[in-house]
Amino acid sequence: MQAQALDTAQAALEVGTTGLFTANNTWMLVSTVLVFIMHLGFATLESGFVQRKNVVNILFKNCMIIAMGLLTYWLMGFNLMYPGGDGGGYFGFAGFGLEMPEGAAGLTEYADMGYTYWTDFIFQAMFAATCCTIVSGAVAERIKLGPFLIFCLLFVSISYPITGMWKWGAGWLDARGFYDFAGSTLVHSVGGWGALAGIMLLGPRAGKYTANGIKPITGHSMPLAAIGVFLLWFGWFGFNGGSVLSGDPELVSLVFVTTSLAAAAGAVGAFIVSYAMFKTYDLPMVLNGILGGLVGITAGADLMSPANAFWIGLIAGAIIPLSVTFFDKMKLDDPVGATSVHLACGIWGTLAVGLFGDKAGSGQVVEQLIGIAAIGVFTFLFAFIVFFILKATVGIRVDEEEEARGLDIGEHSLQAYRI
Amino acid sequence: MQAQALDTAQAALEVGTTGLFTANNTWMLVSTVLVFIMHLGFATLESGFVQRKNVVNILFKNCMIIAMGLLTYWLMGFNLMYPGGDGGGYFGFAGFGLEMPEGAAGLTEYADMGYTYWTDFIFQAMFAATCCTIVSGAVAERIKLGPFLIFCLLFVSISYPITGMWKWGAGWLDARGFYDFAGSTLVHSVGGWGALAGIMLLGPRAGKYTANGIKPITGHSMPLAAIGVFLLWFGWFGFNGGSVLSGDPELVSLVFVTTSLAAAAGAVGAFIVSYAMFKTYDLPMVLNGILGGLVGITAGADLMSPANAFWIGLIAGAIIPLSVTFFDKMKLDDPVGATSVHLACGIWGTLAVGLFGDKAGSGQVVEQLIGIAAIGVFTFLFAFIVFFILKATVGIRVDEEEEARGLDIGEHSLQAYRI
Amino acid sequence: MQAQALDTAQAALEVGTTGLFTANNTWMLVSTVLVFIMHLGFATLESGFVQRKNVVNILFKNCMIIAMGLLTYWLMGFNLMYPGGDGGGYFGFAGFGLEMPEGAAGLTEYADMGYTYWTDFIFQAMFAATCCTIVSGAVAERIKLGPFLIFCLLFVSISYPITGMWKWGAGWLDARGFYDFAGSTLVHSVGGWGALAGIMLLGPRAGKYTANGIKPITGHSMPLAAIGVFLLWFGWFGFNGGSVLSGDPELVSLVFVTTSLAAAAGAVGAFIVSYAMFKTYDLPMVLNGILGGLVGITAGADLMSPANAFWIGLIAGAIIPLSVTFFDKMKLDDPVGATSVHLACGIWGTLAVGLFGDKAGSGQVVEQLIGIAAIGVFTFLFAFIVFFILKATVGIRVDEEEEARGLDIGEHSLQAYRI
Repeated sequence: MQAQALDTAQAALEVGTTGLFTANNTWMLVSTVLVFIMHLGFATLESGFVQRKNVVNILFKNCMIIAMGLLTYWLMGFNLMYPGGDGGGYFGFAGFGLEMPEGAAGLTEYADMGYTYWTDFIFQAMFAATCCTIVSGAVAERIKLGPFLIFCLLFVSISYPITGMWKWGAGWLDARGFYDFAGSTLVHSVGGWGALAGIMLLGPRAGKYTANGIKPITGHSMPLAAIGVFLLWFGWFGFNGGSVLSGDPELVSLVFVTTSLAAAAGAVGAFIVSYAMFKTYDLPMVLNGILGGLVGITAGADLMSPANAFWIGLIAGAIIPLSVTFFDKMKLDDPVGATSVHLACGIWGTLAVGLFGDKAGSGQVVEQLIGIAAIGVFTFLFAFIVFFILKATVGIRVDEEEEARGLDIGEHSLQAYRI
Repeated sequence: MQAQALDTAQAALEVGTTGLFTANNTWMLVSTVLVFIMHLGFATLESGFVQRKNVVNILFKNCMIIAMGLLTYWLMGFNLMYPGGDGGGYFGFAGFGLEMPEGAAGLTEYADMGYTYWTDFIFQAMFAATCCTIVSGAVAERIKLGPFLIFCLLFVSISYPITGMWKWGAGWLDARGFYDFAGSTLVHSVGGWGALAGIMLLGPRAGKYTANGIKPITGHSMPLAAIGVFLLWFGWFGFNGGSVLSGDPELVSLVFVTTSLAAAAGAVGAFIVSYAMFKTYDLPMVLNGILGGLVGITAGADLMSPANAFWIGLIAGAIIPLSVTFFDKMKLDDPVGATSVHLACGIWGTLAVGLFGDKAGSGQVVEQLIGIAAIGVFTFLFAFIVFFILKATVGIRVDEEEEARGLDIGEHSLQAYRI
Repeated sequence: MQAQALDTAQAALEVGTTGLFTANNTWMLVSTVLVFIMHLGFATLESGFVQRKNVVNILFKNCMIIAMGLLTYWLMGFNLMYPGGDGGGYFGFAGFGLEMPEGAAGLTEYADMGYTYWTDFIFQAMFAATCCTIVSGAVAERIKLGPFLIFCLLFVSISYPITGMWKWGAGWLDARGFYDFAGSTLVHSVGGWGALAGIMLLGPRAGKYTANGIKPITGHSMPLAAIGVFLLWFGWFGFNGGSVLSGDPELVSLVFVTTSLAAAAGAVGAFIVSYAMFKTYDLPMVLNGILGGLVGITAGADLMSPANAFWIGLIAGAIIPLSVTFFDKMKLDDPVGATSVHLACGIWGTLAVGLFGDKAGSGQVVEQLIGIAAIGVFTFLFAFIVFFILKATVGIRVDEEEEARGLDIGEHSLQAYRI
């Protein structure tokens, strides 16, 4: 009976471990699928907010961004972002291509973390392409396709993984105590800084800022924009929920609550402020308010109470109409509001980790500011230099005639609709 | 070796329990995500079925409904619906805001149920907003936005949780033996009764019922409507599948089968009856037939055989064209058919629990009728009184000029399309 | 203490086994949901690629296909495809309707496989309808609705399960060593052969092939087409990932990586070749390139390294513009490119199992060719004969006037848009 007990116990331990591993890994794969569909969210949101004549162009860009993002992350991005080593570093590289830890042992060691090597790669790969998609919306309706794709290639395969490593790859910001749970800074602000560099060098769309004031250029399809926002919220359950890096019931479910309440509060915040400012029920503001709330909660989604999440989201939503108005005053033309959603609210959310929740404190505020500044400076400079070189050589802006006629005909010989 | 066996056994018990808990909780979170995306389903379905001039309005309402639904459920709805206590009651309230059961013990006790406190809240919160969304479609194209949002606030935070408690919160209907697995009555009929009260007090859209008969006002985009129906079906796997309240393999998978077959049979039932009635292949009827099948199976999705599910769905689908025609004869104008889908098929599905499957029997039929009537009377009166007071004070209908011009310009200063 | 150890060990074994079973079954149900939404992907893709006047027709067909597919698979398809028995057979049938293995024992035996009887049925049922949906796109814009639905009924309930049994039901191709992990041949080529038979007997759309050359008839909505492709990719994580038939962490995550990289490489392959051929950034080609990459990897998604997946996808993407051009030269008119995506890339992917990865070898190439040929001949003949009989009796093509005016008015008395 002794031997029987031990045998049974060992069998039970094995099946129990496999069960937990499978449950954790399944959640990570579901999260991967959810983050993937955010790319459709971005594609539809951006399509809806641009003019009819530039829709094929947006869709084409979004197809190529996810394709190039996955392939370059396989070729080098993953190993730049997670180079291994002792931590505290500024740069590292574990070689080209994917090299699975040797044999079964490698996978089993990975299993301690609750998911496999392949899961780790594919979840992170889905994140990577996001940063370029954010840029894509801001520079829409006037950027040349070829140079934009070159920018994306460099941005997603070099810039994003290097700053990502600083925190998630156990780099110097991580060693200092900077906190960014799921990427308010590492993903969203990074995209936002790239977008800012792009629109500074591109200039506004023709006819946007006139002697008689700012001409609103409204999007061509509100249903597409709304589909985009709901799909992004949907995917965000994987973006934030998967960043727990396991199926841990307490933590993942708390993240669901904070993420949802922040998004809801973002809608309300944008509703109130935009109504006060414009005296109308402003759909694009509320849509971006939801996204602002989501970006805002992302840095600390695992640290906040429901009430904390509400306030972070409410303020993020309130920021949206103010920020959109501010960028327009600066004549920085952003057709989809990506800089407001991802940069302004990304900074707010990262700061909020020092103001609300489990890590609140003045020391943390300082660390958050250092992280925001360091990653902001690196990313903005990287993006600015790349766009600058492209502008000086092949040019980054389509000619006036093509801009007026639309990029769909100019670059793709195709109209988005025959309705 | 004895000590080793016991240690191993205890370690195995712990990891096995954690694994099961994680697997169950993961399924509940996946279900939460699926129910969330139903709000996009409703938004696109309703958008597709209204006229072009009222699309921004529908999208705006659907954004605010999910936002307000989540926030009010956090503030009070959850604690009204699940007040705790011994059961059998009519009303209870566990206080404002979320109060997690004290310390780790609280969460562990929750764990016996297969999911955490946070999971419980967020899954239920996603359900709550649904009842208002159902109303939104029926009153579309002529209701004022402000009063509608006030109605939603009261409906979702007071009416829905009180009647919900009667069954799911261990209230008096539960004690009697009323059965409603996932909400044919508690969610869908409730929304349907609210919709009915609304359209009775609002009156039909201008030009719908004329001296020369009923003028069909067809929707502006069938692709949007179809996207909505498929997304709702997609989400229903979480709505019904998550109502098992664990990942129990047998029960969840049975629910998947009954839900799918009922939806499929709903399409066929609506196809046959609408073809017989109108001599055409009627897409809106088939789309609503699918939804009717889904609403119909919801009350007993865990009790039925595949064949039972087929018949319940087929009849629900057949009800759709009959019910739509009936409501039109009554001059109750419902642009999206929400009263037919959610009220008529919700009643049918609740009754079907007494006619088919594991609980069939005349005693159960009586209990089902009592539940249908009690919740119907309470909800209809609540909604009627709220709409009546709003009508008598601030008014609930936009003026004729705005209705003719469309609510998008009138309330939102924005057109849905620039195509 | 001995008894305590044994009791604890047995309890641990039970909870651990339940946990693993729940985790595996949950993954299979999530996969089911993902495959389900592919039907919305097909509906939107096909809608986007046809002309505005035939959109209601496409949507209607896609609603009825999923409905009929589920119901006929319940009535007979499942038991034709998985008749049980010793394997090696050509045909078998386990009877009409679903008959669950007797009592709890049946379910527990099933549990060894990681999922329940109901899960097995519903996952397979979602696959079945896919083959008709593929045909639907190719024959769009000119086929009569009634005869098409009759074709679907026969194709999905007889042809698909019989050839499916040859491999997945332990039939003669399985016994020989033919390999098709998730259906490059069993699902996609089967749909493609049906499509080919259909378009051969239907003839091209009026005005497509003129004396002055081929007239491109571009789709009416690129956003709908793009939504379709992203939803299909999204669903493919369940199509391929669920074909592991458990939540096995290593295998499912490897399948995610190979599936994603092949899709991404498909986009790049189609981009390069279509740019070389047409000197424009061709969105429809890139969209179909993604799908080609997905179809290509499907037969061997569990056998390939990331680099293998890249090459298989790249070649599949490159095939798309070549194949589309080839079919147009043959005057085989396929509005959505279904024959190129599903037939050409399905054959390529099935062959690739013999050329790349764990099973590569000349013996395997021979087995793959035998499987491709056997299933191709059977399916093409079946579809050709059914379409031929329908053509000779009730007719399969709408009249010229209806084709010119559009099937939406002709068959459905409804326009897709009022914009």
